[in-house]
Amino acid sequence: MLGKRRRLAILAEGSFTPLEGKTAVGVLRYCPDEVAAVIDSTRAGRTAEACVGLGGAVPVVGDLAGAAAHGADSLLIGIAPQGGELPAAWRVMVRAAIERGWDVLSGLHSFLADDPELAALAGARGVDLLDVRRPPARRPVAAARAAGVEALVVLTVGSDCNVGKMTAALELRRELQERGVRAAFVATGQTGIFVADHGVAVDAVPADFVAGIVEEMVIEAARGADVVVVEGQGALRHPGYSGVTLALLHGSAPAALLLCHHFGREAIRAPRHRAGAAPVPARPPAGEPVIPPLPEIVREYEQAAAWVRPARVIGIALNTLGLEESAAHEAVAAAARGTGLAASDPVRFGAGPLADALLGHLEARRRHATAS
Amino acid sequence: MLGKRRRLAILAEGSFTPLEGKTAVGVLRYCPDEVAAVIDSTRAGRTAEACVGLGGAVPVVGDLAGAAAHGADSLLIGIAPQGGELPAAWRVMVRAAIERGWDVLSGLHSFLADDPELAALAGARGVDLLDVRRPPARRPVAAARAAGVEALVVLTVGSDCNVGKMTAALELRRELQERGVRAAFVATGQTGIFVADHGVAVDAVPADFVAGIVEEMVIEAARGADVVVVEGQGALRHPGYSGVTLALLHGSAPAALLLCHHFGREAIRAPRHRAGAAPVPARPPAGEPVIPPLPEIVREYEQAAAWVRPARVIGIALNTLGLEESAAHEAVAAAARGTGLAASDPVRFGAGPLADALLGHLEARRRHATAS
Repeated sequence: MLGKRRRLAILAEGSFTPLEGKTAVGVLRYCPDEVAAVIDSTRAGRTAEACVGLGGAVPVVGDLAGAAAHGADSLLIGIAPQGGELPAAWRVMVRAAIERGWDVLSGLHSFLADDPELAALAGARGVDLLDVRRPPARRPVAAARAAGVEALVVLTVGSDCNVGKMTAALELRRELQERGVRAAFVATGQTGIFVADHGVAVDAVPADFVAGIVEEMVIEAARGADVVVVEGQGALRHPGYSGVTLALLHGSAPAALLLCHHFGREAIRAPRHRAGAAPVPARPPAGEPVIPPLPEIVREYEQAAAWVRPARVIGIALNTLGLEESAAHEAVAAAARGTGLAASDPVRFGAGPLADALLGHLEARRRHATAS
Repeated sequence: MLGKRRRLAILAEGSFTPLEGKTAVGVLRYCPDEVAAVIDSTRAGRTAEACVGLGGAVPVVGDLAGAAAHGADSLLIGIAPQGGELPAAWRVMVRAAIERGWDVLSGLHSFLADDPELAALAGARGVDLLDVRRPPARRPVAAARAAGVEALVVLTVGSDCNVGKMTAALELRRELQERGVRAAFVATGQTGIFVADHGVAVDAVPADFVAGIVEEMVIEAARGADVVVVEGQGALRHPGYSGVTLALLHGSAPAALLLCHHFGREAIRAPRHRAGAAPVPARPPAGEPVIPPLPEIVREYEQAAAWVRPARVIGIALNTLGLEESAAHEAVAAAARGTGLAASDPVRFGAGPLADALLGHLEARRRHATAS
């Protein structure tokens, strides 16, 4: 990961759960061989499997020493607090990791390598501070050029943040690759970058260039690929992140969309009021935006895509975390019935039906191209 | 402007025209007393009035010496090349301005004060390098809090970039103020910041925080205001900038929108292919996105707003630049007929009808609030 094989200690303090420990779970799922331990003092002594349902016997430990005892040689900051700052309590741990001679991998908005104290310490110990959220220096402006690639571009979009867009993209790619399809993955967030070993965390890019950066990545990934699967971010109805979502939609200019939803979620999870944030206005805000039924979300994404390039939602990736097996099957079947689209929980039941739908789309496109 | 009264030399080299010289024209229109000269060697010897139809006898000169002869004491970089870099040819001029002891005001994406050579030179001469595009350090995430302010929030939106969103906002505010309405202006782009002396160039903010920054600015501006007029950016159909547009729409959570359009423009002006940009893909891109008829644009903005908070388009600000007087009147009348909304070219015919429509909206809101 990021330049060499590692034995990671993943910091997930106080949040190593299936829903909160997004980065930790993603890295455990896709890079299990590189994880030595997870640090969460509130769950120390358990296994990863017991906490998040995957990761097998990977131990949860209380501190760096515990992780070192299991052979860790790098610290990965696996939590992304809102606002992206390094909490004061973690600074101590980052410093201690550097002092042990460990590289530190971070997806925080505040860059470790820009922190004079940490940078000096890292320099003295000869370790790397790897800030995967640091935006590239280049400043491309998108012009729907990605619409011109030969490969079929598919973007995962969501009803909200944190519903499984990265996971759906990676599961779809895996399924396509297993069928012999040349499928590339474009990572657009920190966890995706850790897993794929490349990509850009687009939410940290100056807003004018998000679509342009995505456009560049898609064109690059399309070389020698039949399908390019792009990791989506945010949601069109999220008051804080909708801009990132639309920039991704127009920058990647996909022909196909895969809509991701967490079963049962009915309202957008907007950030709560924080200390230091804007003062509360005179009247209470309107409440968290509602998540409408799936067919309406399908329509919204297709409308928004068509402002630049028409796209079709080809399937529903339904996150059924928390449901019993039979209820999960029923939820998937209901999503398929309700939308008339292919549906699956790609983690639980595989991405097969979604890959079928996508390849059907690809086949129709090829026939159309041959005919015309 | 930006801390003191100035005598500006505005650099608009090769582009001092009504359409290209956006920043120069905006500053000339709203801060005429602070402009000593405009630098454009291709038009030296003319007046501002002759080049862009306003600015009266402000001279166009060929270089710094020419501007100095007219009393300039600061250099304002009034062009924003795509990508935002400082062209090599202008560096010489910036250096020369610093050597004259002038402050330099810049809206470029690449910050003058971060350039070691320029920063050292400025330090030695005791002058300020004012980068108005530098984003604030804070990182707020929006949660539709601006929907809760008492003031009526109106956002200018557009059919494309560079159609007159800032100008429409400033003209509307002026008209409201002349009628005794307490109207605040929220600047979101470089020219608006020069004119208003505050604001944030949201297109340079890391994408995750654009809506949050706008939300903060609106809540702040709403204190003691009846109406908050927010300067819009980009367009929902612009492949490069649509994300900024949606972030502004959801972050400012307006109740009212003012749709700006340049008469006769039929396609989005997407950036052309540039040297150093992504290589041209195998097939040609789909062409520049079409600008649909006004009623359809109205519907699109209202749909997109409603994903977070419902808003109504209350009028059309039609830029009739280039039309004869009678044709301009007819174009405005046609826009009003076609949409059933108030319409005006606020620069040419005043913002009266737009202010009427907005105040009608405000009155209806107040009656509703009193009744309920």
